[in-house]
Amino acid sequence: MQALSSAEIIAVGSELLTPTRIDTNSLAITDTLNQLGIEVRAKTIVGDRRADLAAVVRGALARVDLVVLCGGLGPTDDDLTREVVADVLERPLREDAVITEAIRARFRRRNLTMPDINRRQAMVPGGGVVLANVNGTAPGLWIEHGDQVVVLLPGPPRELGPMLEGEVRQRLSARVSGEGLFTRVVRIFGRSESHTEEAVQPFYQPWAAGAPAIEVTILAARGAIDLHLTARAHSQAEAFAVLDPAVRQAVAALGDDVYSESGHAIEQVTGTLLRARGWHLAAAESCTGGLLLSRLTDVPGSSDYVACGIVSYSNQSKLDLLGVDAEMIEAHGAVSEPVARAMAAGIRNRSGAEVGIAITGIAGPGGGTEAKPVGTVVIALETPAGALVRTRQLTGGRDLIRAMAAHGALDMLRRLLTGRQVP
Amino acid sequence: MQALSSAEIIAVGSELLTPTRIDTNSLAITDTLNQLGIEVRAKTIVGDRRADLAAVVRGALARVDLVVLCGGLGPTDDDLTREVVADVLERPLREDAVITEAIRARFRRRNLTMPDINRRQAMVPGGGVVLANVNGTAPGLWIEHGDQVVVLLPGPPRELGPMLEGEVRQRLSARVSGEGLFTRVVRIFGRSESHTEEAVQPFYQPWAAGAPAIEVTILAARGAIDLHLTARAHSQAEAFAVLDPAVRQAVAALGDDVYSESGHAIEQVTGTLLRARGWHLAAAESCTGGLLLSRLTDVPGSSDYVACGIVSYSNQSKLDLLGVDAEMIEAHGAVSEPVARAMAAGIRNRSGAEVGIAITGIAGPGGGTEAKPVGTVVIALETPAGALVRTRQLTGGRDLIRAMAAHGALDMLRRLLTGRQVP
Repeated sequence: MQALSSAEIIAVGSELLTPTRIDTNSLAITDTLNQLGIEVRAKTIVGDRRADLAAVVRGALARVDLVVLCGGLGPTDDDLTREVVADVLERPLREDAVITEAIRARFRRRNLTMPDINRRQAMVPGGGVVLANVNGTAPGLWIEHGDQVVVLLPGPPRELGPMLEGEVRQRLSARVSGEGLFTRVVRIFGRSESHTEEAVQPFYQPWAAGAPAIEVTILAARGAIDLHLTARAHSQAEAFAVLDPAVRQAVAALGDDVYSESGHAIEQVTGTLLRARGWHLAAAESCTGGLLLSRLTDVPGSSDYVACGIVSYSNQSKLDLLGVDAEMIEAHGAVSEPVARAMAAGIRNRSGAEVGIAITGIAGPGGGTEAKPVGTVVIALETPAGALVRTRQLTGGRDLIRAMAAHGALDMLRRLLTGRQVP
Repeated sequence: MQALSSAEIIAVGSELLTPTRIDTNSLAITDTLNQLGIEVRAKTIVGDRRADLAAVVRGALARVDLVVLCGGLGPTDDDLTREVVADVLERPLREDAVITEAIRARFRRRNLTMPDINRRQAMVPGGGVVLANVNGTAPGLWIEHGDQVVVLLPGPPRELGPMLEGEVRQRLSARVSGEGLFTRVVRIFGRSESHTEEAVQPFYQPWAAGAPAIEVTILAARGAIDLHLTARAHSQAEAFAVLDPAVRQAVAALGDDVYSESGHAIEQVTGTLLRARGWHLAAAESCTGGLLLSRLTDVPGSSDYVACGIVSYSNQSKLDLLGVDAEMIEAHGAVSEPVARAMAAGIRNRSGAEVGIAITGIAGPGGGTEAKPVGTVVIALETPAGALVRTRQLTGGRDLIRAMAAHGALDMLRRLLTGRQVP
């Protein structure tokens, strides 16, 4: 059998063709395939029309070794993937009683009766191997077709993820030549995309001339910048032999703005720093309305270092719950350095946590003034390692201002805890 | 000439096939096409390989009236779109001296000499109409091919945007039937995708047989279900004449599980109900860690009805900040109906808000027991309209459990405030 080296990804579902929906499954699939050295040559999103889907599948089979479809495996009438692929490959569907029973049991565990339409999810094309779905009713399918492979995955990311990283990766590993793409991700906060590029551009040529060569991508998302360094190699060790020194060069050039050399989120980085000291954090949030704590507690095990928080959205609650002085708010305004400091001190005292962090600001769209326009955000820290307060002028819509304020507060704590400069 | 009614979008560029890049141009293009009543039937991203691009363009031309390509119009070797389209349509390229001069002038204005490779950007397929680019060197192209139209747009969004909204929209307007697509969105919480479909399936046939016909899509995302009803019509009034009665039928069939008939988020719906009563809400969150309040305060103007919140992540903070009895936690555990009720009463008393809402649960992955497995979540409400407490058994990963718990708490409040049944 020939090694699989080229792939197309097909996402199925009319909802993915609306002006607001983005297909993110194909990114995870691309990542896995690239790691295995399989090049993704095209990605298509196609709606729930039998003829269109059949034509797209036929087109892909004419060009590449591996076709990965996702979505359209649900129980309803517009879930066509299984049937269309069976048609195109000329392999009639038959119901697999074991799958039907598994789906029925899943409903039973939730005290529900399986609707009859769910039996469609137990239909398997001849020669297809069933891929178990630990998080849902729709099983995946692995179909070998001559030297080619067609894989069907469910659309919901939490169902697709484990199947992709488990059985699909395992089966693909046995069918590839052994060269893969390996990436290291450096994460940056506090400088723009172009200033990031300026800092690392001198390395582009030596990196590209190395063996293996390093490819560079810079991505900006919600105020943070990611630098991706990628190499094609037979093993992680071979790739990292060139990537690790390159990461060190990039980190030296980017200085204090690097918050992770290994793709970690800022809430993980800060959490690790707190855990190492045995410190607990308590937050007082105004304009971010709980977003900072919600991100911190996204991380499993965060109860080790997150104590509690107070969302003092109204001015009254800043007095009642945090003990901020009414006259201080009167004199300086709720969005001011004295009030932010008082909020951080207040939450720290009331909780007994080592670290108090406070955010107050104007997320917009209303509430701005000439002196304090929308985007004005004040962040204060009270810690055993010292206190800090900064006023930031953020730009963007309400969502972006809130996201940047939460990220910025965590990054400020990271800098304080590691002795970096805080601009 | 026949009216254009179906389209495919093709984004060109190997960089768009990496695990981190998302194609957003196609969203803007879809929006414009839908507004003009043109249905997008598929979107493809294809790399910089001549044969792949040619095959994808041929495939699209075999299925739809309009093919919109974006990207690959730059001056370098891997910018193939112009040449491949000329090949597929069998219209030889010739250099357009006016374009060459315009590009040369653009360089001159920046005191630069035009590199010779930029002459490639002045190549026009026979019969092609040039679309001016106000923000870059690559002109777009409009090519009529029998009854079909092929449009080539530059990849950078700030170059594509003005071209799309200007000349392309104008030219397309003259080629469509004057019908647009109109959609109404019904949002549902508390039943599965398949149980939603079961409830509305009896209407599919009458809806499809109406004039204009209604197309139905059901979407599941993070535990909530969206029902999209879409009609093609000459005006919103004409579409809504069939969509409004259909929405009423769906709402009658889905009963208390409908939280919005007009696509609003649960935090908007609950906010509107609170504002109408002049009530304020205060939240005590444990496992959701601030997510509930963060979602409520996502909505501009939410300070009208959000008072404050306490994230009592540690047990100690449940005692200190909410006044929960230590013996009660000892006796029933932190995840229990008595503790949830005490949390809701505690936050209500301390804040003076009319509505107290509390969530305590086990989001996982750790912390589960046989009696209280991961996913056990208790929600309590204390309001002037009455008190409520419910224990839910949620499934999924940490993120999904937290999202469902926050959504479920808001939905429970919605049901209480509107006199609906709370399962």
